[in-house]
Amino acid sequence: MPGEFDFITWIRSQQSKSPLVQLRAGDDLAVLKWDPNDLLLVGVDQVLDGIHFDSKIHAPRAIGRKVMNRNLSDCAAMACVPAAAVATCALPLAGLADPFAYAKELYLGMKEAADPFNCPLVGGDTASWNNPLAVTVTILGRSAGIPPITRSGAKVGDWIYVTGPLGGSILGRHMTFHPRLELARQFASTIHITSMIDISDGLSRDLRHICQQSNVGAIVDADKIPIHEDARKLSQQDHLAPLDHALHDGEDHELLFTSANPEVPAICVGQIVEGSSIQLNTKLKSVPLEPKAWEHRL
Amino acid sequence: MPGEFDFITWIRSQQSKSPLVQLRAGDDLAVLKWDPNDLLLVGVDQVLDGIHFDSKIHAPRAIGRKVMNRNLSDCAAMACVPAAAVATCALPLAGLADPFAYAKELYLGMKEAADPFNCPLVGGDTASWNNPLAVTVTILGRSAGIPPITRSGAKVGDWIYVTGPLGGSILGRHMTFHPRLELARQFASTIHITSMIDISDGLSRDLRHICQQSNVGAIVDADKIPIHEDARKLSQQDHLAPLDHALHDGEDHELLFTSANPEVPAICVGQIVEGSSIQLNTKLKSVPLEPKAWEHRL
Repeated sequence: MPGEFDFITWIRSQQSKSPLVQLRAGDDLAVLKWDPNDLLLVGVDQVLDGIHFDSKIHAPRAIGRKVMNRNLSDCAAMACVPAAAVATCALPLAGLADPFAYAKELYLGMKEAADPFNCPLVGGDTASWNNPLAVTVTILGRSAGIPPITRSGAKVGDWIYVTGPLGGSILGRHMTFHPRLELARQFASTIHITSMIDISDGLSRDLRHICQQSNVGAIVDADKIPIHEDARKLSQQDHLAPLDHALHDGEDHELLFTSANPEVPAICVGQIVEGSSIQLNTKLKSVPLEPKAWEHRL
Repeated sequence: MPGEFDFITWIRSQQSKSPLVQLRAGDDLAVLKWDPNDLLLVGVDQVLDGIHFDSKIHAPRAIGRKVMNRNLSDCAAMACVPAAAVATCALPLAGLADPFAYAKELYLGMKEAADPFNCPLVGGDTASWNNPLAVTVTILGRSAGIPPITRSGAKVGDWIYVTGPLGGSILGRHMTFHPRLELARQFASTIHITSMIDISDGLSRDLRHICQQSNVGAIVDADKIPIHEDARKLSQQDHLAPLDHALHDGEDHELLFTSANPEVPAICVGQIVEGSSIQLNTKLKSVPLEPKAWEHRL
């Protein structure tokens, strides 16, 4: 059964060259040569009830924050500066006591997330239907003096870094994470970063995105993976190893990046190697690191 | 019960000034001062199964075309040049024989609509859920030498024009309309147009948008309203007057604009007057023209 990533591959095969498009579908954001001075980055992300949040549990303000923060995290992944956003929401006609108040809370959640980055919400489209809530945010960013960092620049010998502990985000952090925008710009302006992505689909899958688009392989050192306390908590409930949660859970939204610099103030988890395979090294053995995280089936 | 337009009014009250934003939420597109040479216009529109199309009747390619054409029509309304788009789709997990093929058809529909305008689809987000299809397109446009035409510039004495016959789009034209991009650019570059909108919510409501944002009233001449053949056909089915369909049906996506020029090669339907009321003049009487078209309830 194909999935969303097969669909992206197919879309790339359909696209023709355009003088405007420097980097098309398949990275965190598309990169457009909008004007002579600056690159424009654009991307869109949606959150759906029952998939990315549960409207029976999560308040609309938290849902609004999440969808905006996912987009801001895409800006972080490319080391660009968020500039403006537009949003849609499809509100359920039934089941909301006060749909107008609910829509306002959604908007305020988006605004709360975007305001610290001076990223105004400049437009949108609101509709209602007899189905669950669906919200999208489209974000526009600027390169602002730092060339966008893509998934395709990792080089053999580069070190692989992450910016924080991983795993178990489903216990709550998937709604409350902070996009690593400042850290991304700081690293990108002081260190030569060769590739970057935000961990939305799990380290194992997101590292694969980098390796596939950079035509390289990787070795990950199991002992070096930073395991979040939530991964340990979750492990007590489901009896999967905490390391498995750290490797495969999605929606951490920490940065995953590569650099030839061995002294980056982040957590080094492995190294880029020749070939195309991604291996996980433990004290005893080396095994292929296969993605196990969420993929939307099509 | 409030509706989507009350929500837009509330959102406008929440927005603070930003040096980037020349025109914020409340017009067909937001206008951003992106670079010194050119304005960037951005907007987003969604289509939902059971509201804007019926997936049991309409093919995915037609649905893809419709959502892209709605966005292109927003570009027409502002007389800008579409430049690039991003899209989301939330695909139903159940009920599609081949979801991958279905997603491809949606994409090809969007591409078919956008290609004639050299507007590449540069990115997107695909997800699947146990609910009906929801598709969004965000469009970026450029002013490209012509200042964007807004809803707020209509002046007392201006003539009110439409670009084609109206009403009965539900019989099929709501899926197959052509965005009036070339006509909009042509008018905007040769005639002084003071305000413009595309007729998506019905002439009566869209003229109200212009009048409210321009702080003017209007007189519409019932005899001059161009009635589409579909409005007459629909009238035989539902026994409403064809004129009512022409005045109130949505999704015609013809342009509605105002100009002091009395000799525009379009259909003159009335005149802007002082005050805030919109009157419909027939041979026998003058009555208030109240919007009756669709509004999403919140």
